[in-house]
Amino acid sequence: MQRFALLGAGFIGSVHAANLAANPRVEFVSVYDVSAERAAAVAATHGATAVGSVAEALTGVDAVYIASSTDTHADNLRAAVDAGVAVLCEKPIDLSLERAREVVAYADSKGAKVMVNFNRRFDPDHAELKRIVDADGVGTVELVQLTSRGPAVPPLEYVKVSGGQMRDQTVHFFDLARWIAGADPVEVFAAGSALAEPRLAEPEYDDVDTSVCVLKLPDGALVQIDNNRRTGYGYDERIEVLGSTGLVESMRHRARRVTHYQAGAVVESQLYAGWFERMQPTYALALEHFVELLETGAPIEPSLVDGLKAQAIAEAATRSLHTGVSEKIAY
Amino acid sequence: MQRFALLGAGFIGSVHAANLAANPRVEFVSVYDVSAERAAAVAATHGATAVGSVAEALTGVDAVYIASSTDTHADNLRAAVDAGVAVLCEKPIDLSLERAREVVAYADSKGAKVMVNFNRRFDPDHAELKRIVDADGVGTVELVQLTSRGPAVPPLEYVKVSGGQMRDQTVHFFDLARWIAGADPVEVFAAGSALAEPRLAEPEYDDVDTSVCVLKLPDGALVQIDNNRRTGYGYDERIEVLGSTGLVESMRHRARRVTHYQAGAVVESQLYAGWFERMQPTYALALEHFVELLETGAPIEPSLVDGLKAQAIAEAATRSLHTGVSEKIAY
Amino acid sequence: MQRFALLGAGFIGSVHAANLAANPRVEFVSVYDVSAERAAAVAATHGATAVGSVAEALTGVDAVYIASSTDTHADNLRAAVDAGVAVLCEKPIDLSLERAREVVAYADSKGAKVMVNFNRRFDPDHAELKRIVDADGVGTVELVQLTSRGPAVPPLEYVKVSGGQMRDQTVHFFDLARWIAGADPVEVFAAGSALAEPRLAEPEYDDVDTSVCVLKLPDGALVQIDNNRRTGYGYDERIEVLGSTGLVESMRHRARRVTHYQAGAVVESQLYAGWFERMQPTYALALEHFVELLETGAPIEPSLVDGLKAQAIAEAATRSLHTGVSEKIAY
Amino acid sequence: MQRFALLGAGFIGSVHAANLAANPRVEFVSVYDVSAERAAAVAATHGATAVGSVAEALTGVDAVYIASSTDTHADNLRAAVDAGVAVLCEKPIDLSLERAREVVAYADSKGAKVMVNFNRRFDPDHAELKRIVDADGVGTVELVQLTSRGPAVPPLEYVKVSGGQMRDQTVHFFDLARWIAGADPVEVFAAGSALAEPRLAEPEYDDVDTSVCVLKLPDGALVQIDNNRRTGYGYDERIEVLGSTGLVESMRHRARRVTHYQAGAVVESQLYAGWFERMQPTYALALEHFVELLETGAPIEPSLVDGLKAQAIAEAATRSLHTGVSEKIAY
Repeated sequence: MQRFALLGAGFIGSVHAANLAANPRVEFVSVYDVSAERAAAVAATHGATAVGSVAEALTGVDAVYIASSTDTHADNLRAAVDAGVAVLCEKPIDLSLERAREVVAYADSKGAKVMVNFNRRFDPDHAELKRIVDADGVGTVELVQLTSRGPAVPPLEYVKVSGGQMRDQTVHFFDLARWIAGADPVEVFAAGSALAEPRLAEPEYDDVDTSVCVLKLPDGALVQIDNNRRTGYGYDERIEVLGSTGLVESMRHRARRVTHYQAGAVVESQLYAGWFERMQPTYALALEHFVELLETGAPIEPSLVDGLKAQAIAEAATRSLHTGVSEKIAY
Repeated sequence: MQRFALLGAGFIGSVHAANLAANPRVEFVSVYDVSAERAAAVAATHGATAVGSVAEALTGVDAVYIASSTDTHADNLRAAVDAGVAVLCEKPIDLSLERAREVVAYADSKGAKVMVNFNRRFDPDHAELKRIVDADGVGTVELVQLTSRGPAVPPLEYVKVSGGQMRDQTVHFFDLARWIAGADPVEVFAAGSALAEPRLAEPEYDDVDTSVCVLKLPDGALVQIDNNRRTGYGYDERIEVLGSTGLVESMRHRARRVTHYQAGAVVESQLYAGWFERMQPTYALALEHFVELLETGAPIEPSLVDGLKAQAIAEAATRSLHTGVSEKIAY
Repeated sequence: MQRFALLGAGFIGSVHAANLAANPRVEFVSVYDVSAERAAAVAATHGATAVGSVAEALTGVDAVYIASSTDTHADNLRAAVDAGVAVLCEKPIDLSLERAREVVAYADSKGAKVMVNFNRRFDPDHAELKRIVDADGVGTVELVQLTSRGPAVPPLEYVKVSGGQMRDQTVHFFDLARWIAGADPVEVFAAGSALAEPRLAEPEYDDVDTSVCVLKLPDGALVQIDNNRRTGYGYDERIEVLGSTGLVESMRHRARRVTHYQAGAVVESQLYAGWFERMQPTYALALEHFVELLETGAPIEPSLVDGLKAQAIAEAATRSLHTGVSEKIAY
Repeated sequence: MQRFALLGAGFIGSVHAANLAANPRVEFVSVYDVSAERAAAVAATHGATAVGSVAEALTGVDAVYIASSTDTHADNLRAAVDAGVAVLCEKPIDLSLERAREVVAYADSKGAKVMVNFNRRFDPDHAELKRIVDADGVGTVELVQLTSRGPAVPPLEYVKVSGGQMRDQTVHFFDLARWIAGADPVEVFAAGSALAEPRLAEPEYDDVDTSVCVLKLPDGALVQIDNNRRTGYGYDERIEVLGSTGLVESMRHRARRVTHYQAGAVVESQLYAGWFERMQPTYALALEHFVELLETGAPIEPSLVDGLKAQAIAEAATRSLHTGVSEKIAY
């Protein structure tokens, strides 16, 4: 039984709270949020205790789930390390790669157990794709294609503090690319435009909503990533891995498996409305994985280094968006 | 908040227990089983109280979930009616249509609230198919095709007390046919063979494992049902409704959405292993529906009459298996 | 090089004419039709000679394609046998099973080479399904499901002389069932209604447009066939073969492989408009097969006996439509 | 009736010969090849006349199909223009963009009717995708994804004279991108590796077999193209167009529509073996289109300018392969 604290009781914090409460190997002990009201509500729903400070939350628990705002991740992570508590941390570690590196170095020096929550690795279809790649089902990986397209541009206020599309959205797929290929990309080219929301091109945001990245792996294998913030048809995510002997695809999800044959058209069910509807089950699976690692003592993965590396790729990609050059990645 | 008792803590009872415990509108109060040990185990897992008798279980609750062995359904149902407790009852009401009719008449005379657990109606894909039919998406229903094929013949000891394939397996699809078409079939033809397990043909069992039924509806519309007890490729269920203007299909489920392109073949994920893996989510949805009906006071559906009618079709179908004649159905 | 005559220059005759002209192993010599004008038109298009009588057509050729009206099949077949000419004959041999038997006996006594044009056997997908069944891909065949649903009820004048749905439409699937299972059904149950065109129920037509058949094979395996004359969504044909170890399906065809993801729906291409659009390629393949048999001297298949047996099943099925009893089939 | 000459009787010339012979609006008059033997064989098969020179071939015909070796395209095109004969020309116009521009200018100055054979535009699925885009089915085009992956690296001797992957394979998709988006890309980034055949990296070939291109359109829309020369699973081509309101996809083709459900896997039919099996029908459709344009006098499309522009993109892409920079395209 792992005793857990939760930091952050916003939208995603509430999701984690429900998963903490439902997991039979977890005791959901305490929750802290800058809004005492939000913390109280989540605590009441799930039988946990709302506490008044991070320090209090970190007392008497085995592990902490950091789901607070991005700018607090690094401090909370440091506090958890000091408290000797294992950490499941939402990405990114910190928007500044520099600061992220510092806190990771600190956590490493203390031998802390920290998992970065790259939840997509736990999607059962993506995991099955990975299993097939690892079982040599497609031979040597030569070309990976990752697609993620969302239904709506986030609020501009969110975009402003998000670090931009590469650091906020594409970073998930930089991680998936590394994970699937089992190698660190050496360079990245990125191109993007503000098509769904032209205001994103203004200096205030300096961002894009439709982008393409090309990564080159050490052995010459290539990765394509396309990301988009407004689809008109729901949330669209798929992965293809082309290898020397075959191809494996984790397909788009349709919400239902119902087909309606009509005059002039065959109508299938629509896709899920958004990334959350599509990806929700992965959070419970990621938590389950983390608990399993804690109980067995196995190495933590996705690790802080995984988190840093995905961020390093995002840095280079953000640079490439401006230079139009395939940029070397400095890990 | 509905206070629930559970009768029966076997395999399916345990499934119901978990759903009772997880439903925020339910308080799971008590559980009874002929095996006190089984009841205690289920109670411990979910924080309910194991009790020593049906009467005790029915005390101080709003509703009871009857998941005890088939031969106890009628008595437990009667006891619940006498206790003034609402009932969610596993099918069949009783293997004897005669006795089933008696207890239904009794429940009706007391104005009892009883839902028969035809869980497949709550499968989201089947429900979407039904929604499309009701929204006139295919015009007038003319031909319904229902397929259910399972991976393995049940143990012969189970078969012996099951009432045979029509009463045990096909009865679910007799209900779905009535529900989808919104009409009561007038006659049924059935043909069957013992192909997966030839011993089923022996007088001791007098049963089949591979069968086809043809139902005729009052307006001449037709229903095909095929049932099989051993597929070799997992659990296979699908429904097609052909109407005067279109067709709607609730498709086979594949467990994953991963495609593997190889030399000579394109390999998709397999189907779910068995009916339980495919249908498990329907139990929570059926319970949710029942709680909703209790809270809103809406008419209970699927009703006891629905249960009786599906059984009446099974009776006629069982007769037809022997006569080779399309048999009239007496409701 | 096989020299061919063609009898019949109507719609299907014109299709055969084009295939005869295009086949590099065929010399399309002559064409006869009761309408000299029609014969002349077809002859002109394809560089053949229009002739004034069946006898003339049968002179100086190796083979004849009989595509004249159904009531002339038997006489034309007899004439071809007398002329020592190989025959590719449209089904049915004759609407009267009695007369069909007579002419088959005559052809057999003369050692004639006659292929009955069950063109669906040559559909590449159906043929692949058959190949998989024969290669033991599904184990012992236990349940076959055949679906054929057309877009429109034929003109009533056609229906009147067609022999009814069983003899006209379902007969193709009686043949496919025998071919796939490799066995002769022993009994057949049929149920049907006039739903698309209620006038079909009048004594003048005594026919149905929506029907279901259940065949029983000698080893207890079952066959379901559903046929419908008006779909609202194009031509719908599919076959499933369930065996002791697996299932193989020859799927519905969509005319295009284009998917359109929109708000609220995923739209696939429609099915082919009618049976002809779906099945047209099979005619050239059937001809190719016949030419191959002539050139290699291999046994002719589908044979006249295949034609007779499918008709015998249609006779019993037509009887069952009226009796509601599973009827024994007399071959 | 259009009288046609054919220049080139190699593999693709033979395909064109068969289509010329089969088209009812075409009279296939003459064929020339540097190998008199090859020309004679093609002529004999299709009832045309083998001639001894290009000049002879261009005499007495309305149109010429240029399917000779790439290095002869420009001269043959010039000769046809001088002879006042319409031209259907295999791509590329000339491997040298400079020489291609010269001959196009010459043809334009003479008002010649020339169609460049970008056959993929005539694939019925790609054409349906284009129809949906043009009918505003996806809103404004924002992201186009084109995939083409072939089963085997061509012979090295072919690669050496092919101009490299961009000019030989990707050029088809540069054309499709322009056609679908209805706009000329302004810059292109390309990355590639020699993974299937490492010798391609040697200076002698200086080529790649696995590549990714990113095109930027004037309005900021993006195009991804991935090309590969050895798949292990057949020929794989697909197109996706993401617009402001939806997505349309022209899907991978599987050779058959047969599904085989087995223990542990669902097996679908494989893809077509190679590009030719997949794309063969497009040649007859392209010819049909050309004949239609000649008969109606409609503007010729795909035009010589289309041919030049696709080549101009290929030039810039080839440059980008070496520079790692997104290169401006000079049309």
